[in-house]
Amino acid sequence: MLLYWLGMFGIAAFAITGVISSGKRDMDLFSVVLLGMVTSLGGGTIRDVILSVDAVYWVDDVSYVWVAFLSSVFAFSAVRVIENRQQLFEYADSFGLALFTVVAAEKVLNYGFSSIIAIVMGVITGVAGGMIRDLLSHRPPLVLGKEFYATPAFLGALLVVALEKNIPFHEFNSVYGAALIFILRLFAIHKGLYYPSWLLYKKRSKHDAE
Amino acid sequence: MLLYWLGMFGIAAFAITGVISSGKRDMDLFSVVLLGMVTSLGGGTIRDVILSVDAVYWVDDVSYVWVAFLSSVFAFSAVRVIENRQQLFEYADSFGLALFTVVAAEKVLNYGFSSIIAIVMGVITGVAGGMIRDLLSHRPPLVLGKEFYATPAFLGALLVVALEKNIPFHEFNSVYGAALIFILRLFAIHKGLYYPSWLLYKKRSKHDAE
Amino acid sequence: MLLYWLGMFGIAAFAITGVISSGKRDMDLFSVVLLGMVTSLGGGTIRDVILSVDAVYWVDDVSYVWVAFLSSVFAFSAVRVIENRQQLFEYADSFGLALFTVVAAEKVLNYGFSSIIAIVMGVITGVAGGMIRDLLSHRPPLVLGKEFYATPAFLGALLVVALEKNIPFHEFNSVYGAALIFILRLFAIHKGLYYPSWLLYKKRSKHDAE
Repeated sequence: MLLYWLGMFGIAAFAITGVISSGKRDMDLFSVVLLGMVTSLGGGTIRDVILSVDAVYWVDDVSYVWVAFLSSVFAFSAVRVIENRQQLFEYADSFGLALFTVVAAEKVLNYGFSSIIAIVMGVITGVAGGMIRDLLSHRPPLVLGKEFYATPAFLGALLVVALEKNIPFHEFNSVYGAALIFILRLFAIHKGLYYPSWLLYKKRSKHDAE
Repeated sequence: MLLYWLGMFGIAAFAITGVISSGKRDMDLFSVVLLGMVTSLGGGTIRDVILSVDAVYWVDDVSYVWVAFLSSVFAFSAVRVIENRQQLFEYADSFGLALFTVVAAEKVLNYGFSSIIAIVMGVITGVAGGMIRDLLSHRPPLVLGKEFYATPAFLGALLVVALEKNIPFHEFNSVYGAALIFILRLFAIHKGLYYPSWLLYKKRSKHDAE
Repeated sequence: MLLYWLGMFGIAAFAITGVISSGKRDMDLFSVVLLGMVTSLGGGTIRDVILSVDAVYWVDDVSYVWVAFLSSVFAFSAVRVIENRQQLFEYADSFGLALFTVVAAEKVLNYGFSSIIAIVMGVITGVAGGMIRDLLSHRPPLVLGKEFYATPAFLGALLVVALEKNIPFHEFNSVYGAALIFILRLFAIHKGLYYPSWLLYKKRSKHDAE
């Protein structure tokens, strides 16, 4: 039940990032809302299609579609009066990343898959919605940026899986995982939290300069 | 049966747009044809994978693959003698959008899903093929453009669903829906049919300028 | 069994291309590895989702995930000491294209699908991983380039299907197909092997110039 609401909040958060990211001057309501919905429903769709255990979640339970739709419409209206869209974007994206990752990891564990699949699917689900958004908005994916992005998702999924193995069905396991991801991501954005240099990709040849 | 032929025409139309869009000077026949086929078969593939009721349509009935292949080869040859490719592109894209949207909406209703799923899947199927095409051709998606694109698909899907609920199995329900989408889209392109300003996205922060 | 190992080698090769392609100065280990894994597991995921006969291969057999992960980590470390990344990229991409195409074609035939589906799925699987990689790295897809790319995959898939129909279950059928693709692709890159001009796309209108 908690998982259900976390999923809903994640959808609302990603819908907002989709609207902010794709919105260009004078685009119309419906196009922007469509991109908000694709962003927010996309990650979980990929998860369910790959697992192919149940039907895709929003086909099964239409309330997800409504949440994605209403959040997108709300974001479309709200962005007019918001001064700092970039900051709202970053917070909403971190929040969505956190919730989608842990919800996916929990869901995969509940289906009886192995820990590794739970971690991999958690990271992919968390990151995929944002990737689709960035591709459709014709921007370089956020995950390619210099702040760390995949790592918080990975550590959060790892924490959720570790907690579930040791204290199964504890109510707040997913909340702890989501909090870890959200906090690490905010630190990355605001405090420049980063890796030691030997864990960074080094430029060498012309190919990278392109 | 009518639905079957509408689907085939949609595939041929989208194959043409894929060829025109992806074709770059000196690309070879097979690459261009591959992109035509991915564009034309892609939207319906996403629809069937998400619904996961039957096998993907073109795996079940190979004649779709042949239509996509032959239309792409035809378009590859024909574009050499066509003066106004941009116009052909716009007409074929509008035609494909119209047909794919209504065929998907009808198919989803026939499977027994709810009206909302039918409308959402109709819009997604109609728009997705073009999105894939634009991503692979490395252009900004058409749906992000200033002419309206998602709205006609939405209204057409709505009309088809409304007609099916009131006069079920009427032969021309999908034709009416497709005509509405096609006409609205042509008006949007040629007459600048558009939204009142309060339904448009307003630029505010630096984030949008990027 | 041979097919299993060919698939593993293909995954390792594509993981390397994903790392080289997506790696930007100062990106961190985990983001680069994630993109290597998405590149290497992506093509086969699309294949299995479209066929929807079995579960997606790496959900079923986690060793694929490990190979993708370890190859990506290895590539991340190795690229620091490699002078000519562009060349390694081209060889690994050709190798991955060759193996993925023939493995997919064989797998589809073994499931009992028709020859046409086997050829189409072979080409799509071979090309899709690279397409996802290029989209996520924000580069124009390689398949849109001027060297030929789709054609070798098509001819290799055709050869595998023809051999399987005539000498079924012969151990080296897939090796012959893969060798054909790899050699044709290397000729294309290094010797400029190409099409006669009437099989090339001709620029005509302003639309293509964009």
